[in-house]
Amino acid sequence: MPPLECVPNVSEGRRPEVVARLVAAAASIPGVRLLDVSSDPDHNRSVLTLAGEPGDLRASLLALYDAALQDIDLRSQQGVHPRVGAVDVVPFVPLGDTPMEEAVAAAEALASEVAERFDLPVYLYERAARRPERTRLADIRRGGFEGFPAKMADPAWTPDFGPPRVHPSAGVTVIGARFFLIAFNVVLETADISVARAIARKVRESGGGLPAVRAMGVYLESRGRAQVSMNLVDFRQTSVLTALNRVRQEAEALGTRILESELIGLMPEEAAVGVVREALQLPGFGLDRVLESLLR
Amino acid sequence: MPPLECVPNVSEGRRPEVVARLVAAAASIPGVRLLDVSSDPDHNRSVLTLAGEPGDLRASLLALYDAALQDIDLRSQQGVHPRVGAVDVVPFVPLGDTPMEEAVAAAEALASEVAERFDLPVYLYERAARRPERTRLADIRRGGFEGFPAKMADPAWTPDFGPPRVHPSAGVTVIGARFFLIAFNVVLETADISVARAIARKVRESGGGLPAVRAMGVYLESRGRAQVSMNLVDFRQTSVLTALNRVRQEAEALGTRILESELIGLMPEEAAVGVVREALQLPGFGLDRVLESLLR
Repeated sequence: MPPLECVPNVSEGRRPEVVARLVAAAASIPGVRLLDVSSDPDHNRSVLTLAGEPGDLRASLLALYDAALQDIDLRSQQGVHPRVGAVDVVPFVPLGDTPMEEAVAAAEALASEVAERFDLPVYLYERAARRPERTRLADIRRGGFEGFPAKMADPAWTPDFGPPRVHPSAGVTVIGARFFLIAFNVVLETADISVARAIARKVRESGGGLPAVRAMGVYLESRGRAQVSMNLVDFRQTSVLTALNRVRQEAEALGTRILESELIGLMPEEAAVGVVREALQLPGFGLDRVLESLLR
Repeated sequence: MPPLECVPNVSEGRRPEVVARLVAAAASIPGVRLLDVSSDPDHNRSVLTLAGEPGDLRASLLALYDAALQDIDLRSQQGVHPRVGAVDVVPFVPLGDTPMEEAVAAAEALASEVAERFDLPVYLYERAARRPERTRLADIRRGGFEGFPAKMADPAWTPDFGPPRVHPSAGVTVIGARFFLIAFNVVLETADISVARAIARKVRESGGGLPAVRAMGVYLESRGRAQVSMNLVDFRQTSVLTALNRVRQEAEALGTRILESELIGLMPEEAAVGVVREALQLPGFGLDRVLESLLR
């Protein structure tokens, strides 16, 4: 198993030819495995899942930044997902027995090189954060691309790397290290974004809801539906099924229902096995009860 | 992947030392992989899951019959599960691209050798059946060990192999070939077996319930609970989650509820992935969205 995963989120989900160029750039480094591309026109965002050695991933990400800075101009980019950069956020995730320190070191090395090569302000977040108030992505991202020049005028928001001025077309970028996160969106029958927002407030940890759950409500123009968009930052604390069931309960209380769900990126095997165990009320279930898993 | 799976069901689930001897006998053939042992004291039955080449599996099964005939005497064996033999039923299941014909051939070769070596009447069932009325296991098993001498007096029930008389201690045995089957039991809160039986009648295909579902209600002495015991003979027609949800609905209508479930033997990966897809309302979910699966 490669030691690190890297999950760059880029602010482009509408122009397939641009997404293809970005993906091709990231995948151009031998040794880096492209595991998934999840692209969404309403969020106007694509999430790539890469895995490899730290040096190879750094080369892959530098190629991605290069392509993104050529093709994405945030002054004309709009989507329902909050963003501050053309390459918005780049988390490194330790796989298998890799220590978190290795993911932090990969984030720092990339941050330094991105700042120098592209003259781009870089913020380090989560486990790579150098100031406690920069731990949470939501705090760094508050105000968005449009609000960032004013935000950066405050010395509290001087970047960790790079110039203290927002890049005109590419904004800033947020790089960090964290544990595996499951990005899971639930599409509602209603088109009313206020319903999705009310559900998100009930479900998320910061509103007294489920532990390790972040949520926001958005409107999907392309489908004419509202969506609860969630990040499950510790699926051992709150599983995907528990989060879905809670959304269903709140949706029904507000007179709507769930149409379907979407997974952005990947789910770890342990989370999938946990869903089977929970859904089937099968306490003893594990991979040792799956035929192909035993035969491998 | 080995070409065949074989899932012998033996009529012993209470004496661990006997189960251990049976398992050791079946596992004594190099090349045969023992994938699972599920043993239940109330059913007084153990289900072994083996995989290997036809010749190796035949040797393994002959060793198992030999051990079972020494250790099991149906005249003193009682359990909630219907049975006609010490080695009650032995299905061969094709794995991967193996044609069903290979499983049928394995069943026929074993049937012939078991009859000759142990002087035991053998019935071929399911895809190996030689008469249409012997296709369904339930039809062969009707009357049980105790009723079989009278049943065999009818020429319609002359065995396919072996002598036309019931073995005094080991009864008869049923050997065959079929596709993968999921054996799934649901434990109810109630101790009332009539409730479990009523649910089973509603849920099973023969009662107008779910397609490809067989079900019976039993009482679990060791737990003081009633159980709906199911065989899902085509999980693509009716998934484990659909079957469970239907049991839950019928249970609630009868004023009881589900405590937990049990899987007997194994589940194929595709069935587990299907449960995740169904439980999470995630139409696009597959192994290509599971991190470890992509990294293998």
